[in-house]
Amino acid sequence: MGQKPITFLRQVTALCLCPELLDEPSIPQDAKGRARRLLAACAGQSAGAYSASPGIELVRQDVARFLQRRDGVPAKPQDIFLSTGASDAIVSILKLLVSGEGGSRTGVLIPIPQYPLYSAAIAELSAVQLNYYLDEEHCWALDVAELRRALAEGRQHCCPRVLCIINPGNPTGQVQSRQCIEDVIKFAFEEKLFLMADEVYQDNIYAEGSAFHSFKKVLFEMGPPYSEVVELASFHSVSKGFMGECGFRSGYVEVVNMDPDVQQQLAKLVSVRLCPPVPGQILLDTVVDPPQPGDPSYELFIAEKKAVLSALAHKARLTQEIFNQVPGIRCNPVQGAMYSFPRIELPPRALDAAKAQGQAPDMFFCMKLLEETGICVVPGSGFGQREGTFHFRMTILPPTEKLQVLLEKLSSFYTKFVKEYS
Amino acid sequence: MGQKPITFLRQVTALCLCPELLDEPSIPQDAKGRARRLLAACAGQSAGAYSASPGIELVRQDVARFLQRRDGVPAKPQDIFLSTGASDAIVSILKLLVSGEGGSRTGVLIPIPQYPLYSAAIAELSAVQLNYYLDEEHCWALDVAELRRALAEGRQHCCPRVLCIINPGNPTGQVQSRQCIEDVIKFAFEEKLFLMADEVYQDNIYAEGSAFHSFKKVLFEMGPPYSEVVELASFHSVSKGFMGECGFRSGYVEVVNMDPDVQQQLAKLVSVRLCPPVPGQILLDTVVDPPQPGDPSYELFIAEKKAVLSALAHKARLTQEIFNQVPGIRCNPVQGAMYSFPRIELPPRALDAAKAQGQAPDMFFCMKLLEETGICVVPGSGFGQREGTFHFRMTILPPTEKLQVLLEKLSSFYTKFVKEYS
Repeated sequence: MGQKPITFLRQVTALCLCPELLDEPSIPQDAKGRARRLLAACAGQSAGAYSASPGIELVRQDVARFLQRRDGVPAKPQDIFLSTGASDAIVSILKLLVSGEGGSRTGVLIPIPQYPLYSAAIAELSAVQLNYYLDEEHCWALDVAELRRALAEGRQHCCPRVLCIINPGNPTGQVQSRQCIEDVIKFAFEEKLFLMADEVYQDNIYAEGSAFHSFKKVLFEMGPPYSEVVELASFHSVSKGFMGECGFRSGYVEVVNMDPDVQQQLAKLVSVRLCPPVPGQILLDTVVDPPQPGDPSYELFIAEKKAVLSALAHKARLTQEIFNQVPGIRCNPVQGAMYSFPRIELPPRALDAAKAQGQAPDMFFCMKLLEETGICVVPGSGFGQREGTFHFRMTILPPTEKLQVLLEKLSSFYTKFVKEYS
Repeated sequence: MGQKPITFLRQVTALCLCPELLDEPSIPQDAKGRARRLLAACAGQSAGAYSASPGIELVRQDVARFLQRRDGVPAKPQDIFLSTGASDAIVSILKLLVSGEGGSRTGVLIPIPQYPLYSAAIAELSAVQLNYYLDEEHCWALDVAELRRALAEGRQHCCPRVLCIINPGNPTGQVQSRQCIEDVIKFAFEEKLFLMADEVYQDNIYAEGSAFHSFKKVLFEMGPPYSEVVELASFHSVSKGFMGECGFRSGYVEVVNMDPDVQQQLAKLVSVRLCPPVPGQILLDTVVDPPQPGDPSYELFIAEKKAVLSALAHKARLTQEIFNQVPGIRCNPVQGAMYSFPRIELPPRALDAAKAQGQAPDMFFCMKLLEETGICVVPGSGFGQREGTFHFRMTILPPTEKLQVLLEKLSSFYTKFVKEYS
């Protein structure tokens, strides 16, 4: 994702691929020890062999320990399924929950704006996409009354069974409050919905006063009956956070309170694809079990991690500040994740020009921007937005100096564009 | 897959993950040069970044050159889609070809016995599985008359559109003759079927007189109209061959004569999953573009490759020889791939005992074998077989000495089992 790799993660993974390098003096002992431990857990001690379909047992154990530390509630390796990135796990769980032929179709509630993996997977599975709108006026908050509206509407023509949450939000960058999560859990309990919590940006929290609350932690703090009944799948990934190792395609899902028969079908389903990529599983292990104080790699690891996260926090603020100086652009605070999703006013003549070209107005704007400046941002219509509003998604990942230039160029292009079409 | 990794492949991949090792003197210069070349082709020069959805452009070019060398006919990078192992590509192509809702369902012809990925994917997609039986009496040959029978039967209740071929065969180990491939292509042409050629075992040919002929090469040698009309997708993988790097989950599909609109949909379809794992793409590159004579890594590379392939050839013969000494077991020559699929006679009392336990007879045999000897083989019923015949699949991958012991133990267990149930 354009950020500098974290040395420890890459060293361990490279050593597992090429164990002859275990003699290399420049690599710290803890990285070597970790590589030996992971290799011993691989079939035939090789990163090139298939692992068990739900992942290397040792890595699942390390993920469980990580979750236990994070949430303060027990986590079991057998509830953790490693995957080819979070996308893969999300599609597997959707596949499992969307019932097959006959009967009324399964409805899946998703936020708007949403990350388009959801709409694509729902379409592929012939399920019904049920939109609930996030509240842009309140920093893209999730409002349970809106969930209720979407559910009631969905019940008229399908069987809503799944509620997807993206927190921190993609593309919207909001971080949900603990209260909101509790309300969503109560709602899922009352309405017997399966909760899918996309929490891949859990390490990417920037705004003061914002904190990540995992659905699982809140669920268990709420206690019975919720903690014993509400079915939850939570997704995580090595593609985001401080590591941004998206090329490895590695992630996992933890399932909570899943019906044991259904969970067995999940195990069967994932076995068709044999196993997730082993190099990614190894890298994931280094993320959930990082160097500890006193370890040779600790200082460097912490310094690298802090550098990435504080740069992201700085760039989140910078983005919001620059955009909000431009009349016609309004950008909610980037509380978390890796994107801004500013709203743009487009003059009526721009709407006409877009129509004449058969394009959505924000697509028209983004194409003009690309042609004239070389800057590529994604139109809001790709994520969904309230009728008549226009947005684009822009990542905060480029290096600070570059980002500053991009933001300024984009802002002045917008001003010129509005003038041109007014 | 239980074989020793090929040094060059792992060195290049490890260097790409951990470029600080480019200074390491123990690694040969050509591996370093290759790693630099590949890193330069990665987004942000990092193996941790997403690649383009169909794969790193440079790797697709190298695959195209590999195919051109192999077949002597042009291959274009834009027709090559890298994937998360061949399984992923096979499922993508099936998804693309199996039409959606409404109308009559799509029929997919698959061999029996087959690798169960096909039956699972067909079921998942609500397509119709149409079985054509391989001819065990003729070394699991593919008979076009049998294809014709299966097609005619399928036409009575669905719309057959796809013909899947596995060559060399899994689980059956046969290698198709050039004549047979030509006959299949003519058949596909006449019946307007899309050909899916699973050629992942193309480097695993052991029997004297057997040779691998790619469907694409034969198709182009046949010339027009075939070469201009017959639609083909051919699959390959780093999981088999001399490298056996299945943990990396890396493969590709080349499409030939695909309708351009359909191919555009394929590009869209694969983009939903973002990209195949980058470490696997890098490793794939080293497989399709291995060290050349004069390169520092060449001698070792060739020695390692030969050692693996000649050991496999030896074990293929050994398996067939030992099994065929046992009355009641009949094993076709393992001409290629990585498995034997011997037929076993089971006495009537064994069939009764299996029935009493609600198990398929060969499953009953395999479970007893596992319980008494610890040897795990897969019952033929998992792959499909002619009614009333029984088989199991056993890999030839264990080291020779181990395999010999396994074969002898299994043979004497079978003899004891038959005695016990006679």
